[in-house]
Amino acid sequence: MKIQPPRGMRDFTPEVLKKRYYVMDVLKRHFNGYGFLPIETPAIELLSTLTGKYGDEGDQLIYKILNSRLNEQTNKPEINTSFQNHLNAGLNSTLLTEKALRYDLTVPLARFVATHRHALAFPFRRYQIQPVWRADRPQKGRYREFWQCDVDVIGARSLMNETELIQLADAVFETLQLPVTLFINHRSILNGMADAFKISDQAEKFMGLLDKLDKQSFQDLRNDFAALGLSAEALEQLEQLLLLKSPKEKLPFQNPLLEQGLQELITVMDRVSPRWITLQWSPLLARGLSYYTGCIVEAKVRSGSLQSSILGGGRYDQLGSLFGYTDLSGVGISFGIDRICDVLEELNLFPASVQSASFSKILFTHFSAEHQWYTLNLARQCRGAGIACEVYAESGKKIGKQFDYAQSLGIPWVCTVGDNEVSSGLLSVKSMQSGHQEKMTFEQLIDKLNL
Amino acid sequence: MKIQPPRGMRDFTPEVLKKRYYVMDVLKRHFNGYGFLPIETPAIELLSTLTGKYGDEGDQLIYKILNSRLNEQTNKPEINTSFQNHLNAGLNSTLLTEKALRYDLTVPLARFVATHRHALAFPFRRYQIQPVWRADRPQKGRYREFWQCDVDVIGARSLMNETELIQLADAVFETLQLPVTLFINHRSILNGMADAFKISDQAEKFMGLLDKLDKQSFQDLRNDFAALGLSAEALEQLEQLLLLKSPKEKLPFQNPLLEQGLQELITVMDRVSPRWITLQWSPLLARGLSYYTGCIVEAKVRSGSLQSSILGGGRYDQLGSLFGYTDLSGVGISFGIDRICDVLEELNLFPASVQSASFSKILFTHFSAEHQWYTLNLARQCRGAGIACEVYAESGKKIGKQFDYAQSLGIPWVCTVGDNEVSSGLLSVKSMQSGHQEKMTFEQLIDKLNL
Repeated sequence: MKIQPPRGMRDFTPEVLKKRYYVMDVLKRHFNGYGFLPIETPAIELLSTLTGKYGDEGDQLIYKILNSRLNEQTNKPEINTSFQNHLNAGLNSTLLTEKALRYDLTVPLARFVATHRHALAFPFRRYQIQPVWRADRPQKGRYREFWQCDVDVIGARSLMNETELIQLADAVFETLQLPVTLFINHRSILNGMADAFKISDQAEKFMGLLDKLDKQSFQDLRNDFAALGLSAEALEQLEQLLLLKSPKEKLPFQNPLLEQGLQELITVMDRVSPRWITLQWSPLLARGLSYYTGCIVEAKVRSGSLQSSILGGGRYDQLGSLFGYTDLSGVGISFGIDRICDVLEELNLFPASVQSASFSKILFTHFSAEHQWYTLNLARQCRGAGIACEVYAESGKKIGKQFDYAQSLGIPWVCTVGDNEVSSGLLSVKSMQSGHQEKMTFEQLIDKLNL
Repeated sequence: MKIQPPRGMRDFTPEVLKKRYYVMDVLKRHFNGYGFLPIETPAIELLSTLTGKYGDEGDQLIYKILNSRLNEQTNKPEINTSFQNHLNAGLNSTLLTEKALRYDLTVPLARFVATHRHALAFPFRRYQIQPVWRADRPQKGRYREFWQCDVDVIGARSLMNETELIQLADAVFETLQLPVTLFINHRSILNGMADAFKISDQAEKFMGLLDKLDKQSFQDLRNDFAALGLSAEALEQLEQLLLLKSPKEKLPFQNPLLEQGLQELITVMDRVSPRWITLQWSPLLARGLSYYTGCIVEAKVRSGSLQSSILGGGRYDQLGSLFGYTDLSGVGISFGIDRICDVLEELNLFPASVQSASFSKILFTHFSAEHQWYTLNLARQCRGAGIACEVYAESGKKIGKQFDYAQSLGIPWVCTVGDNEVSSGLLSVKSMQSGHQEKMTFEQLIDKLNL
């Protein structure tokens, strides 16, 4: 038997988890400070809720769940009884599967708003940190189960929300001490370009090409742009535009949609006043997802080998239309927790407090079962004094083995109890870091650990 | 389209979630204080890891995931291409499904230990708080997605662990102020009875009957016990034994297995010294799961209409044998988070701090987009001073509507900014509780909120 989790999915050991919890706690603390409200949705959604929202490629990566209807009489699953029906209907039939694992947190949010619409206070400002599942090909840094962390405002068109979400990201990355550049653009700028170049019907392909400029030069892609229908003059204008550093610079051409996008971008950018991040306009930032309609953002780390995106987001006006409402504009950002953890590890930015797995400040070791019971009482008193601690859980083991346990978990102090300690009331306490050992009363030990 | 989560699964709104997080935080704080280490495992396990561990009934409730192998060349799922193969092999074939959602946290723990055995420090003391899924029939208080919260020690036979886990439960329920009776028994006591009554081959059915004594009287079940092969004398002895209040009382008969179980039970119980819970021996506590081998425990709330179990656990010696190791004895307890939340709600035991959804201490309201931008700066300064707050997210809305928003989220203070406030620097601040409104400088506001 292969004793592993499924391919592309991870166990989180205590060492790794303590660091992940640190990142999640920083995020939640800031979200709460900004008054965002947490929600959680089920891992499983109706297949009809999910399909048709992610494009054909996305749909194929959705994990579907085999039906297991319970027979009303027997209370047992019916799955094998209607096999001929499944066969006749085909493998995609709702007879075989009608539920699936969520693919992201955005569609569940839109569904949540539809479900709870009449009970929610709008504008609805929510955050959600939960795993999502994709039957993607696993590779380095890409998993089949991974965490998304979304913050959104639903039902407010004010550009203040774009500014505030960037300030929130600024505060998070400052706390994490992560050097980040946040790139910003506006869909109307991209649509305005396509309009000015008279290729509005090719806008999606145009944005796809712009996305590629991240890795390839304009010269490399010049022919591809031309193939979309850009004239020689348009190509020159595009190249000039892509060189602009600020949305306030003079444009190489005029277009009302583009002007409007620039105006909104300027409004948002002028009010952010970043304290930590670098905020930069990127006229070639397009972001793949088709549902964005206004500002779009993406954040990248400025140092280390991992140049990957750790945050993305933007405004989307039409997501509710998937679930029967169109009056609620949305804007949000999504933090990539897995990648943030990878980068913090690489840049050695995790604080010392999360470098060891254990929360215990002291391990009580013992020579016999009787001494172990004695230390259980000491441990209970320690905890009463607010000190995390533990007793070595097996009795009759060699003291050296018990010290090895403390070492491997990074527990800083070890107290050893034998007959002498019980009779004298003086405990032997050793620092695992310095190796220094001394005798002290229990009260002195509490004072020492409370320092 | 039905815009709901699937049947038996729940959305958690902010109001509900704040209370759930409170419970989870209490649990984690105590687990960390006791030196237990967190782990997380994937929602999805290999089907071969899960099947055969929960009995036939359990196996049928496992949610299976439809295969979606990616074609190596096209990187697209292959599922529809081998339909004839699926047909030939049948619906339970690994061609159709080879992964499933976890059914509990115990089997994933046993698998985790097998996977990471050479990297773990033993005794391995871990906790795990994650959802599990069962295709069970939904009913009041029973969901298809629910949370388990397990604390276990793997690789230590010392009875100190039984005692310490009960002390941990004692500390948790004290913090939650939940009046709880913790019932304890020992499998050897039950096996010893079956041995003394010469029905060891019927031990499982015997335990099943004992479990029923929770709701039915001994007289009602007398014939059922007799049908298992208990003599008239044995029936009398059993009835006497079930009346015992303490494991130290004189037994109606002798049996070495029973004596050994009682001795272990006495050792554990004598050392707990509960501070909050009532600890009570229950000779009829059997617990369904077949894998328990030593002490078993179950906790019930003493008041309210919900008499359901909120904690269960025990020692299991053979779980590792499912994954190829037999040398690691385990002991653990599992807290029922969903039920604990239900009971706290019914008994009105949630603290005032988690009664409102929002963390915001103040909402900034405004008359126009310009005033909204002004309040964004105030909010940022508030957060810098450690005060959670928010700005009403849409501009140009009636002030009354903005106050309604504060009311519905339970935000205690509202600050309104218009031309007068901007020009004078004096802010209008209203208490939503008293209705009292006063003018103050921003510095005075910070002082007020920091109280």
